[in-house]
Amino acid sequence: MRLATIRTGGGLRAARVDGDELTLLPFEDVGQLLASGEDWAQRAAGAEGSRLALAGADFAPLTPNPEKIVCVGLNYRDHAAEGNLAVPEHPVLFSKYSRSLIGAHDDLAIPSVSKQVDWEIELGVVIGRPARHVSECDAESYVAGYTIVNDVSMRDWQLRSSQYLAGKTFEHSTPVGPFLVTPDEVGHARALRMELAVDGEVKQRSSTDQLIFSVPQIIADISTFITLAPGDLIATGTPGGVGHVAQPPAYLTPGKTVTCHIEGLGTQTTHCVAAPGYASSAA
Amino acid sequence: MRLATIRTGGGLRAARVDGDELTLLPFEDVGQLLASGEDWAQRAAGAEGSRLALAGADFAPLTPNPEKIVCVGLNYRDHAAEGNLAVPEHPVLFSKYSRSLIGAHDDLAIPSVSKQVDWEIELGVVIGRPARHVSECDAESYVAGYTIVNDVSMRDWQLRSSQYLAGKTFEHSTPVGPFLVTPDEVGHARALRMELAVDGEVKQRSSTDQLIFSVPQIIADISTFITLAPGDLIATGTPGGVGHVAQPPAYLTPGKTVTCHIEGLGTQTTHCVAAPGYASSAA
Repeated sequence: MRLATIRTGGGLRAARVDGDELTLLPFEDVGQLLASGEDWAQRAAGAEGSRLALAGADFAPLTPNPEKIVCVGLNYRDHAAEGNLAVPEHPVLFSKYSRSLIGAHDDLAIPSVSKQVDWEIELGVVIGRPARHVSECDAESYVAGYTIVNDVSMRDWQLRSSQYLAGKTFEHSTPVGPFLVTPDEVGHARALRMELAVDGEVKQRSSTDQLIFSVPQIIADISTFITLAPGDLIATGTPGGVGHVAQPPAYLTPGKTVTCHIEGLGTQTTHCVAAPGYASSAA
Repeated sequence: MRLATIRTGGGLRAARVDGDELTLLPFEDVGQLLASGEDWAQRAAGAEGSRLALAGADFAPLTPNPEKIVCVGLNYRDHAAEGNLAVPEHPVLFSKYSRSLIGAHDDLAIPSVSKQVDWEIELGVVIGRPARHVSECDAESYVAGYTIVNDVSMRDWQLRSSQYLAGKTFEHSTPVGPFLVTPDEVGHARALRMELAVDGEVKQRSSTDQLIFSVPQIIADISTFITLAPGDLIATGTPGGVGHVAQPPAYLTPGKTVTCHIEGLGTQTTHCVAAPGYASSAA
């Protein structure tokens, strides 16, 4: 099953993909559907509702307001190697705020205060039921499904101090979606091909088989210190090919288009635009 | 004006302190009051409601579910010095999740998986209206008020990788409150004495005049990359005297009591208890 959160004339709505149509579900977004009870999948699969064409649908962030967004840094062998960084002994966890999220085909806001806006295609994991103190063996049963995240990173802000947060959570800079794809469609998501292109030129091409910490390991680890809640989003890390370590370095600027594709999860296409800035900077 | 979020028989309620009584306000918590419109202070000051005794009130986290919790690391000159750490050039920002918050007199959960649970008294700042691209000069006008945060830190988890998040956001580990105190009562909060004691022994004694980045500087900085929303909580960093750098190091364990006091903001007293753990660990 494929689910999405759609902007309609009446506001946000969760929707199920049925072939080339979307069936609107009685929930504001996919996060609210997931929070509605552990039988969400059966109810989503069986629901009737008004339909609209998939083509031209306006995708909101898949989970517009998750309780938690957890990001994993340095989690691909090829990405650690390209940055000459040691493979970490523990998951490198940081977070984003929900205001940074945008839909899968929304404009990506390039702020005037950063000159180093970089791309990071990532497998996104959405949690389906509360997970606390879960073992690695059980962890996959807490996954609602998978999606595509572009963990866009303002490198100058990410690296201005020891902590990444500021450079990872600029407003309207993190596309998530288009779809939540349930595990029955993509299996364990352990060897999904992934590819990111900028203006059609492939920059990242890898597979989730390059993950250092697997999805079950990440879920088990986080659940050691806090409860993962339905709708929580985990961005599992990016493979090699980011712009910051390219020779010469390459960054996103207004006018560029970023395309992200992960096998079985669809395609995300975002267009870079200049972010609105300080009023005084327009003078 | 002093406000609090109180647990009542009917659930959470925002409340105003009137002498030795609390007047219940028609909002679930202080965060919802602040989000209800920019005239929140006038409405809170003028509201009538049922009353209960301040003594014995059950304080919930002051803002139980803020959109954002932003923490500042290494932001006191004396704390940077005790750790032999350079004074940072930019605010060192990281976050917590709201599930880590507890009330001002709640039990503080000591997890079995950490042997290095440390204390960090901090001036907390709660945002009163949306702040985006604000200047340092204007920043104080976005402050709803101040509170006490104990940014309890599991040092082994904080320092297991480059990113602090895991060690800063254990479930039920961060006391916030008891009160939101509006700026008319505490002024600019630029020289408030603060003191933390463990079992009555003073461990941290400093003043907000030791802040490296001031409250207005922090608000202006964050607002450069994201909108601060009403109810957002900023923990502005801790002064010297943490247990991790004491000789010998000292940590919190079940049975200890932590008392935090900041001039004009009241007192927070939390008792350390063993956190519920993995089912298997009880065997």
